[in-house]
Amino acid sequence: MSEPQNDTDESVAEALDALDEAIEAKQGDRALEILKTLDWEDQRRAISRLTRGEAETLLDILGIEQSAKLLSHLTEAQAVEIIESLPPNVAAAILDEMPAEESSNILRELHDDDAKEIIAGIGQKEDRDELRKRLEYEDGCAGSLMRGYPVTFRENSTVGEVLQDLGEHAEDYSDRDVQYLYVIDEKEVVVGVLRLRDLVLSLRHIPVRELMIPEPVTVIDTMPLDDLAELFEKKKYFGLPVVDSAGRILGVVPRDSVEHETAEEQADMFLAASGIVNGEELRSMELKDRCIKRLSWLAPNIVLNIAAASIIAANEATLQEVIALAVFLPIVSDMSGCSGNQAVAVSIRELTLGILRPKDYWRIVVKEGSVGVINGIVLGIVLGAIAYLYKGNIYLSLTVAIALSLNTILSVLLGGLVPLFLKRMKVDPALASGPILTTCTDMCGFLLVLSIASSMLSKLSGI
Amino acid sequence: MSEPQNDTDESVAEALDALDEAIEAKQGDRALEILKTLDWEDQRRAISRLTRGEAETLLDILGIEQSAKLLSHLTEAQAVEIIESLPPNVAAAILDEMPAEESSNILRELHDDDAKEIIAGIGQKEDRDELRKRLEYEDGCAGSLMRGYPVTFRENSTVGEVLQDLGEHAEDYSDRDVQYLYVIDEKEVVVGVLRLRDLVLSLRHIPVRELMIPEPVTVIDTMPLDDLAELFEKKKYFGLPVVDSAGRILGVVPRDSVEHETAEEQADMFLAASGIVNGEELRSMELKDRCIKRLSWLAPNIVLNIAAASIIAANEATLQEVIALAVFLPIVSDMSGCSGNQAVAVSIRELTLGILRPKDYWRIVVKEGSVGVINGIVLGIVLGAIAYLYKGNIYLSLTVAIALSLNTILSVLLGGLVPLFLKRMKVDPALASGPILTTCTDMCGFLLVLSIASSMLSKLSGI
Repeated sequence: MSEPQNDTDESVAEALDALDEAIEAKQGDRALEILKTLDWEDQRRAISRLTRGEAETLLDILGIEQSAKLLSHLTEAQAVEIIESLPPNVAAAILDEMPAEESSNILRELHDDDAKEIIAGIGQKEDRDELRKRLEYEDGCAGSLMRGYPVTFRENSTVGEVLQDLGEHAEDYSDRDVQYLYVIDEKEVVVGVLRLRDLVLSLRHIPVRELMIPEPVTVIDTMPLDDLAELFEKKKYFGLPVVDSAGRILGVVPRDSVEHETAEEQADMFLAASGIVNGEELRSMELKDRCIKRLSWLAPNIVLNIAAASIIAANEATLQEVIALAVFLPIVSDMSGCSGNQAVAVSIRELTLGILRPKDYWRIVVKEGSVGVINGIVLGIVLGAIAYLYKGNIYLSLTVAIALSLNTILSVLLGGLVPLFLKRMKVDPALASGPILTTCTDMCGFLLVLSIASSMLSKLSGI
Repeated sequence: MSEPQNDTDESVAEALDALDEAIEAKQGDRALEILKTLDWEDQRRAISRLTRGEAETLLDILGIEQSAKLLSHLTEAQAVEIIESLPPNVAAAILDEMPAEESSNILRELHDDDAKEIIAGIGQKEDRDELRKRLEYEDGCAGSLMRGYPVTFRENSTVGEVLQDLGEHAEDYSDRDVQYLYVIDEKEVVVGVLRLRDLVLSLRHIPVRELMIPEPVTVIDTMPLDDLAELFEKKKYFGLPVVDSAGRILGVVPRDSVEHETAEEQADMFLAASGIVNGEELRSMELKDRCIKRLSWLAPNIVLNIAAASIIAANEATLQEVIALAVFLPIVSDMSGCSGNQAVAVSIRELTLGILRPKDYWRIVVKEGSVGVINGIVLGIVLGAIAYLYKGNIYLSLTVAIALSLNTILSVLLGGLVPLFLKRMKVDPALASGPILTTCTDMCGFLLVLSIASSMLSKLSGI
């Protein structure tokens, strides 16, 4: 893989350089030509390397239509960043060119005022109304993910009429999934689904009423992503019709939109668990924003860290007496933290897979308690042995062994349970489990080591 | 959401109890009936609550065919666990009933000897051969994900013949995606793709040669998951034909298989980053296996922790002199660890999105260095101020402020770079970045605090 990879990388690097030149020289056609030679990933990379000013120039020379296409291929975070930096009227023109489900998702990430200003700059009233309506939906719900303008037919249409319509409007329907068509009554209520394959294999004069699958599964526009994902996992639907509270069809939510959104949520979970909160960070974003974003997570953490360290401060006398304990304090707290994190990960995973419910506390106590006892004892013995080799004092060895064992048990129990509590309280477990766990295991770890030591201080003194 | 949720939960709990009773009474029909009232998630939950013995009894009373269906709906880890516990001939019968791409993925997770024994127990020679062939593929590559037996036609077939064939074999094709059909030449080489919608809208006597999209995109059976995911992201293919090195069609890899596998990989990444390595852990697995799995990750970590703590051991004299430092050692190391983890997460995410390449070191140095300097100074000032409030000694305050600032810079640089190095060395960044980073930031944090302190020991002595 190494040889051709390098070749490609070099030609991409050349293309990126050429793109820079074309932007500088304001050669729109040339820039577009170069972009077209790159695949989506390389386009993303190319854009992430431009300054905001350069990106603005590029869109300017590309024109509205090509800019909209480019934005569709970028990651959402990149598109948001670019739209933010554009004058509102240009942003409005570009977003108007994109499918409403994409542009509304970008607008959702902007400040409310900015989004309103951009929407106000969109030409057609119905486009403005559609975007405003979409922005009222919760992020990720059926109404925010659906494609508008589903292909519908009336019950008494015949197979022949439907096929003819499909043929005549082939161009209009080219970007839609037409293997499922929806049958509606006079109130626009969905009464059936037609499969293209069934149409194909039927006589032309039959009314679609006789061919359709009646009483199809529909989803209400406010259905949240979790429920959508569950539905799509249950059955291999290509898409599901989205209806309002009166049952009228509003659009179709395609399987790949639900899967894409679910993958994004997984990625956000991973980022949140690592301290990147409130949406993702890209290194092309402004330095100030990146620093503030990261500090907003670090600031509460410093408070938690100080709370944990206050246990050491309160026991300085013991530590002064037995300075060797200072070596073991971070080991005990870190190791228990690692054990607890494993339990957190298993709980979050089992919650995601649906094989654990937020109220299954007792199951966790049994299942994690047993692992905690065994692993706690194993790790305690190992650390105790190391402590003995280090100082040759059996009491030091006992102190750290008992502290690590107990703290491991506590930590896996807590690690297993915290995600369940958070889930019940509607807090993202990936976001908050880590800091809560670490603070508790640090505090308890320090407390256990120092209080066990102080209970046998005469045996430990001076090591 | 709370009211109906509770209702459902209660009826599910009742169903689970009834299932237990049915299993105990060996009432196969009743057990099957109860399972059918549950959705997939609840089925998974129900199974995860059974002991291995109970699960075996359940499959026994369900019979081969129903067991195969049940296994298809479980998570892969659950299916592997159950297959492992069954007698090889029963496992063989059940796996033989499942689609080859599913059963081969389960077999792949077993010990080689167990997998061989099970395959040997399968009745038909061609089924055995197919499974053996599939097991030779790397996990996640096109050959391991593809569905076999694609729907193919010859170039000179007419539209009418194809439609007739589809009608006659509607039953056989019912579980396959027929909106794309493949046209092959006499050597079984794929020469075109037919869209069902185009067939529908054509005259029946036209040969498919004139209607097909010629020279379609095909993937070689050894193409790895990453490349497949990239291809599917580039264009909205429903599926792509998989060919051998001679261009002969072997199967079709559907979009949802690629997306499902990618999501699994993301989940594995999250688990690996939290210390659950070599596949996932479910709490229904045996206690011994769960303990060993977790210890296999904790054991190397204890070594790394001791390496870090050895820095404290080497500087015990300084610490004895200035015991207040013991309070700040864990704060400095933990806080830098948090900062570094944020950089790790951003690098892993950017690598995944394709906007960062493993050799973009310089970009990371610039982008992370600047964040490190700013956040390092901010955090240093905060911690320095707290240290001053705590002991009223400006030198203690300076020591921790400088140590935290420098260690933050180092940590974000390292955090940003380590995933790139690991990726180049073909090691999973999610797996190894955390421990490497934590060990380094702990060591450097301890070293910075203690060596800065010892350089101004006379000013700090006794606090």
